[in-house]
Amino acid sequence: MRIISNTISIDTQGAGDLIDITAKIKETLRVSNLKNGTLTVFVKGSTAAITTLEFEPGLIKDMRELAERLAPSDKPYHHDATWQDNNGFSHIRASIFGPSLAIPFIGSELFLGVWQQVVLAEFDTRKRQREIAVQIIGE
Amino acid sequence: MRIISNTISIDTQGAGDLIDITAKIKETLRVSNLKNGTLTVFVKGSTAAITTLEFEPGLIKDMRELAERLAPSDKPYHHDATWQDNNGFSHIRASIFGPSLAIPFIGSELFLGVWQQVVLAEFDTRKRQREIAVQIIGE
Amino acid sequence: MRIISNTISIDTQGAGDLIDITAKIKETLRVSNLKNGTLTVFVKGSTAAITTLEFEPGLIKDMRELAERLAPSDKPYHHDATWQDNNGFSHIRASIFGPSLAIPFIGSELFLGVWQQVVLAEFDTRKRQREIAVQIIGE
Repeated sequence: MRIISNTISIDTQGAGDLIDITAKIKETLRVSNLKNGTLTVFVKGSTAAITTLEFEPGLIKDMRELAERLAPSDKPYHHDATWQDNNGFSHIRASIFGPSLAIPFIGSELFLGVWQQVVLAEFDTRKRQREIAVQIIGE
Repeated sequence: MRIISNTISIDTQGAGDLIDITAKIKETLRVSNLKNGTLTVFVKGSTAAITTLEFEPGLIKDMRELAERLAPSDKPYHHDATWQDNNGFSHIRASIFGPSLAIPFIGSELFLGVWQQVVLAEFDTRKRQREIAVQIIGE
Repeated sequence: MRIISNTISIDTQGAGDLIDITAKIKETLRVSNLKNGTLTVFVKGSTAAITTLEFEPGLIKDMRELAERLAPSDKPYHHDATWQDNNGFSHIRASIFGPSLAIPFIGSELFLGVWQQVVLAEFDTRKRQREIAVQIIGE
């Protein structure tokens, strides 16, 4: 049994940016040479999230519209009154989707559907450099 | 410390189907003979999710109505324009709830409340056979 | 590789109570003396959730308003017809946010942003004593 703690860095373009990070995660798993275990993906920060999605242009637009319905960007937020940074909606969107995902791998293959990609969702209002942990516990 | 990677297969009835999979998960844990560790549940595919719920008929209806409010099924989705498969709402509902759950077990008991069941939520529009990983890391 | 299974007990004040449990989690990690691994946080029960949030008074209010929009407390729920306990909204709010979070730690540090706290969200209508597992697998 071993633990491998990798981090990846992703540049985002601000609110509504969705980035497919599946290939980077798979590469981390491949290099580890581990066969069975759990891979945990975690994005640092409170205005981004990790989810899975069929990564195609239509759904990317649908996800942006969903985020806008769940927490409209033109609504006043108490958070903005505290810091004047106008990203109250970013924080609560991130909290709904969550920063973390635990994905099993079996026989060196991540247990993902063919149309199921691991996606970093940027909700902040500005470009960010995101740090993501890709940690593997397995054998 | 050992890893046990089990998969279970569940037939669903399409959008709104909620299935209590707690007994199958507990059986996997029992057979493992492990005492302490983490059990990860993950559903393959991007139109289903795993969550916990008190599994009673009233809440099952409430969850269906919630899903309908979060992502109405009669609204147009960009995803449907891409593939004509009319399940855009299924994808974004699944993304909100997420495909994954990590549950500790302590003294051979899953750390769940008495009224807290592990539930597979089917959001797709048609019957599906779902593959779910139940992976245990423990000792 | 070791497993440490700790539980913490938190008294809550009912619906809308958000409690920062980061310090308790970090203390569990510190005492473990483990350097690298995954820490799983899980709240027992189906009317509470675990999420991450910048824990400041403005966002606490924003989260309460979000929860009210997602599942209004003055709407009738089928669950309430079953049990007459009037917490149907509590259950479905909890299901959206989820009971579980897997957080990597690297070099004895939890992989969290500076403004990213681990938060227990109480959604039930009454005061509760919550049991939370803080389980660490690492080396």
